[in-house]
Amino acid sequence: MPKARLHDENDAVVQIIKTSICGTDLHILKGDVPTVAPGRILGHEGIGVVVDTGSGVNRFKKGDRVLISCITACGKCDYCRRSIPSHCVSGGWVLGNTIDGTQAEFVRIPYADTSLYLIPNGADDDAMVMLSDILPTGYECGVLNGTVKPGDTVAIVGAGPVGLAALLTAQFYAPARLIMIDLDDNRLKVAKQFGATDIINSVAGRAGKQVMQLTGGVGVDVAIEAVGIAETFELCQEIISPGGHIANVGVHGTSATLHLEKLWSQNITITTRLVDAISTSMLLKTVVSGKLQPKQLITHHFELSEILKAYDTFSNAGKEHALKVIIKNLVM
Amino acid sequence: MPKARLHDENDAVVQIIKTSICGTDLHILKGDVPTVAPGRILGHEGIGVVVDTGSGVNRFKKGDRVLISCITACGKCDYCRRSIPSHCVSGGWVLGNTIDGTQAEFVRIPYADTSLYLIPNGADDDAMVMLSDILPTGYECGVLNGTVKPGDTVAIVGAGPVGLAALLTAQFYAPARLIMIDLDDNRLKVAKQFGATDIINSVAGRAGKQVMQLTGGVGVDVAIEAVGIAETFELCQEIISPGGHIANVGVHGTSATLHLEKLWSQNITITTRLVDAISTSMLLKTVVSGKLQPKQLITHHFELSEILKAYDTFSNAGKEHALKVIIKNLVM
Amino acid sequence: MPKARLHDENDAVVQIIKTSICGTDLHILKGDVPTVAPGRILGHEGIGVVVDTGSGVNRFKKGDRVLISCITACGKCDYCRRSIPSHCVSGGWVLGNTIDGTQAEFVRIPYADTSLYLIPNGADDDAMVMLSDILPTGYECGVLNGTVKPGDTVAIVGAGPVGLAALLTAQFYAPARLIMIDLDDNRLKVAKQFGATDIINSVAGRAGKQVMQLTGGVGVDVAIEAVGIAETFELCQEIISPGGHIANVGVHGTSATLHLEKLWSQNITITTRLVDAISTSMLLKTVVSGKLQPKQLITHHFELSEILKAYDTFSNAGKEHALKVIIKNLVM
Amino acid sequence: MPKARLHDENDAVVQIIKTSICGTDLHILKGDVPTVAPGRILGHEGIGVVVDTGSGVNRFKKGDRVLISCITACGKCDYCRRSIPSHCVSGGWVLGNTIDGTQAEFVRIPYADTSLYLIPNGADDDAMVMLSDILPTGYECGVLNGTVKPGDTVAIVGAGPVGLAALLTAQFYAPARLIMIDLDDNRLKVAKQFGATDIINSVAGRAGKQVMQLTGGVGVDVAIEAVGIAETFELCQEIISPGGHIANVGVHGTSATLHLEKLWSQNITITTRLVDAISTSMLLKTVVSGKLQPKQLITHHFELSEILKAYDTFSNAGKEHALKVIIKNLVM
Repeated sequence: MPKARLHDENDAVVQIIKTSICGTDLHILKGDVPTVAPGRILGHEGIGVVVDTGSGVNRFKKGDRVLISCITACGKCDYCRRSIPSHCVSGGWVLGNTIDGTQAEFVRIPYADTSLYLIPNGADDDAMVMLSDILPTGYECGVLNGTVKPGDTVAIVGAGPVGLAALLTAQFYAPARLIMIDLDDNRLKVAKQFGATDIINSVAGRAGKQVMQLTGGVGVDVAIEAVGIAETFELCQEIISPGGHIANVGVHGTSATLHLEKLWSQNITITTRLVDAISTSMLLKTVVSGKLQPKQLITHHFELSEILKAYDTFSNAGKEHALKVIIKNLVM
Repeated sequence: MPKARLHDENDAVVQIIKTSICGTDLHILKGDVPTVAPGRILGHEGIGVVVDTGSGVNRFKKGDRVLISCITACGKCDYCRRSIPSHCVSGGWVLGNTIDGTQAEFVRIPYADTSLYLIPNGADDDAMVMLSDILPTGYECGVLNGTVKPGDTVAIVGAGPVGLAALLTAQFYAPARLIMIDLDDNRLKVAKQFGATDIINSVAGRAGKQVMQLTGGVGVDVAIEAVGIAETFELCQEIISPGGHIANVGVHGTSATLHLEKLWSQNITITTRLVDAISTSMLLKTVVSGKLQPKQLITHHFELSEILKAYDTFSNAGKEHALKVIIKNLVM
Repeated sequence: MPKARLHDENDAVVQIIKTSICGTDLHILKGDVPTVAPGRILGHEGIGVVVDTGSGVNRFKKGDRVLISCITACGKCDYCRRSIPSHCVSGGWVLGNTIDGTQAEFVRIPYADTSLYLIPNGADDDAMVMLSDILPTGYECGVLNGTVKPGDTVAIVGAGPVGLAALLTAQFYAPARLIMIDLDDNRLKVAKQFGATDIINSVAGRAGKQVMQLTGGVGVDVAIEAVGIAETFELCQEIISPGGHIANVGVHGTSATLHLEKLWSQNITITTRLVDAISTSMLLKTVVSGKLQPKQLITHHFELSEILKAYDTFSNAGKEHALKVIIKNLVM
Repeated sequence: MPKARLHDENDAVVQIIKTSICGTDLHILKGDVPTVAPGRILGHEGIGVVVDTGSGVNRFKKGDRVLISCITACGKCDYCRRSIPSHCVSGGWVLGNTIDGTQAEFVRIPYADTSLYLIPNGADDDAMVMLSDILPTGYECGVLNGTVKPGDTVAIVGAGPVGLAALLTAQFYAPARLIMIDLDDNRLKVAKQFGATDIINSVAGRAGKQVMQLTGGVGVDVAIEAVGIAETFELCQEIISPGGHIANVGVHGTSATLHLEKLWSQNITITTRLVDAISTSMLLKTVVSGKLQPKQLITHHFELSEILKAYDTFSNAGKEHALKVIIKNLVM
C-alpha cells in the first residue's frame, strides 16, 4: 500500500501506533455497507503520531501523539455548529468508509484540528484506542440520549463491546440499578464485573417478564438497545415504564414494529443517533482521573501483520470470549 | 340522572356552565375504549361553578367559577410529583372514562384542588373550555415534546382540532415555517388563517415529497403527528431531518413501522404522551394576555338538551365544517 | 412538653426515633432567625414512627417508619406544582421554625402525604436522618444547581456537613477533580477520605491562587459556596472559569460584592436556593443501592435526654471534630 | 487608510456596504477599553461583499454578500466547541478592538468561514446590520439566559438599543407581560410600540415598588439588566420573584452589591454573558420569515464620509431620539 499523503491543507498524516476492529468492519466485509468501495483500507479507531500536517492545521504538529476520532468534523457546516458532526456535510463517518482508514501504517485525517485529540501524558495507549469510537458511542447514543440519572433503573440489551461501553459510562450518573441482558453467559459474567447489578440471559425469551418482575411490575427508566435487531428493540418497548427513555445504539438493517397502540399514552422518548464523538474531551478527562477504565474492554492483542488473525478472533467473538482487540503497528 | 355528590373529602361538585365533545368521546361510542362502562356519562372538558366541596378542599369554595382539567391529579403519587399526572395512580384521565364526566348538569371532580383552575375575571367562557384538553394536548404532546424553537421548520400532520391547537401554540416559539398537512381543504384553509405558512393536501400521497421540496431536500426540524394512524406516523419519519423531533399526539389503535434501517443513524427523537395538563396555568396567562386566541377553534354552539345534535354535527365534522362545539347548560 | 396532636386532617403525628442538630439551630439560639418564637421546639431532621394520621392522609398509616423532610410541601400551591416547595405558600421550612420541630418525643407533620417518606426495609436509621436536610441541601443547592458534569473540575468552599454532603453527591456525576477548601485541617482530611481529589487550607488567604495554579490558570467549572460569608462567595468569583457555575449553598447574613466589572463578560451562572427536598426519593434509591453512604457524616451519638450535651458538642464542632450528631429517643 | 489585506489563509477581506456604531465604540473613544490601541479603526457591525479570500476559506467566495458577526470564532478551540466563541482563544470580540474594524471601506475578517453569514436573497440590508451584534446580544444575554417562557412576566431595565433588542426577541416566547423600565419617556414610548405591555419611568426611584404593585407583590419571572450600572442591577434583585432569573446584559465598569442576605433562600439564577453570536443563523431565519423586524431599531442614516456626524448623533442619543444609526459606504 502506498503511504498516505496530504490532500488538503486541513489534513494531517498520522502513523498508526495501535488500531482496533469494530463490528461495523465485519458488516463491511459481508458487503452490507454499500458506500465502501472495493480495496478500501478499513478501520476508524486508533492512536498514532502526527508525521505531516497541511498548512491549515494549527492545533497539531509533527510528533504529537494523537487519538483519532471515528467522526471527522469540518467544524464549519451547520451540523458541526449544531454539535451534530456525525452529519457533517463533508465529514462524518468517512474513515475506513469513503476514504482509507486506520488499519494501516499511515492514515490521512481530514480536518485534523477538529478530528484529532492530543493524548495526555501518561495515558495508557490501549485505553486511548477505546475512545475513538466504542466509548463515545455507548456514552452518547446510549447513556446521554437515554438521560441516565442518579437513582435510575437502567436496562442495557446487548453485552457486546458497545453495550459494555454504555454500562461503564452509565455509571457516571449513579443509577441505582443496571440490568444487563444478553444471550451469552460469558458476556453477562463480564458485565457483572463491569458493574451490572443484575444480569438476565434472554435465551429463554423471558427477559421482558424477568425485568418486569425485578422492577415490581413498573419497568425501567431507561432502556438501551445495543444489538441492532427488531426483537431487541421490541424488548425495550416491553420493559419501558411511563415517562421512560429508549435509546437506540444498535445498527439496524431492517425496520421494527413500534407499538403505538400501547405507547401513544405512555410518555415515552425514543432516540436514535450516529455517534458524534463530541464527548471525547470529557471522556479523556474521566480516563485521566481514573473514573473510567476503558482498558477492561480489551481481551486480545495482535500485531499489524497478524490482522487476518485478529479479524478471525473478533468475528468469532463468542467462542473466543473476545470483546475488543488491539492491533499494534510494530514499526512504532 | 341523579345529581353528582361528594364521595371523598377532596372532591368538589361542579355545576356545568359549558362543555364540549372530544374525538375520544366518538371512539368510546364506537366501543373502542374498554375502560368505559355502559351508562357512563361522557365528557372531560368544561367549565362550571363549584356547588359543593369536601372538607379537604381548600383552594376552591362554593361559587367559584372553574375550569375543569381533563386530567385528575392526586398531587401526591410519584407520577404527580414527577409532573406526569397523566399516569397518576389514582387519577389521570378518569372523567367520562372510569367515572361520570362533564356532559351533564353536575359533575364530581376528585382531587379538586389539583384538578380545577380558577377562571380569571373577564376571561371568555368559550375560550376557557378549549383549555380543558385540546390546547394542553396540542401544546404538551406536540409543541413542547417536539421542542419547537425560534426559526424552526415545523410540519403538523392533521388539521383537526388537536392539530390546530398545536398550530396555535407552536407560534409561542416563533418558528420560521409551519407546514400543515391534511386531506381536507376546508381544514387547510382554516389552518392558513390560524398561522400556517404552507399547506399541503396529502390526498395524492405526495405530501412527503412536497415537504422535502419545500425544505430544499433537508426535511423539517419538528414533525407533529396529530391523526393517530400508521400512515401519518410513517410520513413523519419520511420528512424528519437529522437531529429532528417527531412528536406523536394522535391516539393510535394499531402499531406502526419504525424505519430503524434508515433512522438508526439520523439522530432522531420520537416522543409519545398522554396530556398531563401541567401547562394549564401557563395557557391561562397567555389567553388572558391575548397571546393565545383559542376561541377560533369553536365552530358550533348547542344547548345541553341538544347534545345528540351536537354529537351528530361533531361526528360529521368534515361535512359540517366542524372543529370544536360548545354545549351550554341553560340552567346556568 | 405536651404531646404533639393533629391540628388538620392532612397532619400526621410521628414519634421520633432519631433526630439531629443543624447549623441553623445554632443560628436560632443566637437569635438570628426572627421567625422563631421563644419556647419553640427546634429541629427539622429526623426519622420516626407514625402514631396518628388525619383523615386526609392516605399514603401513610399508623406504624409506618418514616423519614421527615425538612421541607413541608402542601403539594397544591403554585410553588409546589413548579417543584419549588421551599416557597410553598403554607409550608416550606416550618418545622422547628414556625411550628414545633423534631427535637422532641413527638412531632406534628402537616401535609404528611407530601412531606414524609417511607423508610425502605433494611435501610440504616442513622443514614436516613442525613436525608432530612443535609444531603438534599448539598445535592440540590450545590451539585444540581451547579450542574456538575462528568469530567468537570469542581471546587467546594467549606468542608462542614453541608459542604461534605455536596462532596458526596457531586460524585454522582463523575467529575474529574473535586477540590475542597476549608480552614480546618481535620475537615480537609475527612474530605480527602470522602473523595476530594485536592484539598486546600485557605487560612493563608492564598486559596484563590492555589486553585488557579491547580487548574493551569483556567479556573473551575463549578464553584460551590458552602460557608455563608461574603469572603467565601468572593473566592468563588475569583476561581470560576468562563462558562462556569457558582452555586451558593451557604446561609448568608450580609450582602457580598459581585464583581460585575470582571464577570459581566465571563458567561457565568450564579444560583441561590433554599433546599426543596424534591430529590429525597432519588437519594433514598442511591442509599439503598449503596451508591451513597451518608452515614460517614455522623461523628457523635447522644440520647434525647443528653440534648444539651449534643448542642454543646455540635457548637464546638472544630474542637470536637464533630460533623453530624445523632440524637436517639430512647423510648423507641 | 491602506486597504485591508489577507494575513492568514482563513481570512476574507470584505468591502463594507453598511456599518453602524455601538455603545461600546463610545466607551472606546472615552478611553475605557484598554485593549484598543490608538489609531484602531472601530466598528464590529456591518454587512458587505467578499472581495478576497484566503486558501482556507471554503464557505465563501468573491462576490458573496455577507453579514459580519461581532464575534470572530476559530471554530476549533475548546470554547468554540463548547459553543462559547466569545471566549475563543484566538478570536472572540476582536473587530474594532484588537484588529481594525468595520467603520471603513474594507475590513479583514479572520476565520471567515465561522465568522461570516451569507445574506439571504431579498433580505433588507439595514435589518441585516442589526444582526451583527445588537440582536444576538439582546437575545442570547437577555432572553436566552433569562429563559423567557410562554406566560412569563418579564422586566427589562434599560430601553436603549440592546434593551429593545431583548424586548423584540423576548416576544419569540410569548411572555404574558413585558415591563419596560427606563428614564427616558421617548424610549419608553418606542418600547410600547415594540410590544412592551407596561412601561415605567424610573426617574422617581419608585420603579421597584411599581413592578411589585403591577405583579400583585410577587415580582417578575425574568429581569433583564440592559444598562450596566450597579443601581439597575440592584433593581433587578428587588423585583425578582422566587425561582426567577436575572440576566445581565449591560457592560459594567464597577462592582454591584449582591443581597445574599435576602437572595440566598430565593432560588434565584443570575447570569452574565458576552454575546457568543451563536444564534445568528436562527435570527436570520426569523427575519426572513418576518417574525422579527429589526429595522425598527434604526432611527438615522449617514454616509461613511459623515461618520463624525453619525458619532455625534449617536452620542447624543437622548436628545436626538437616536437608537441605531446606519452608515453607508457610498462606493458600494
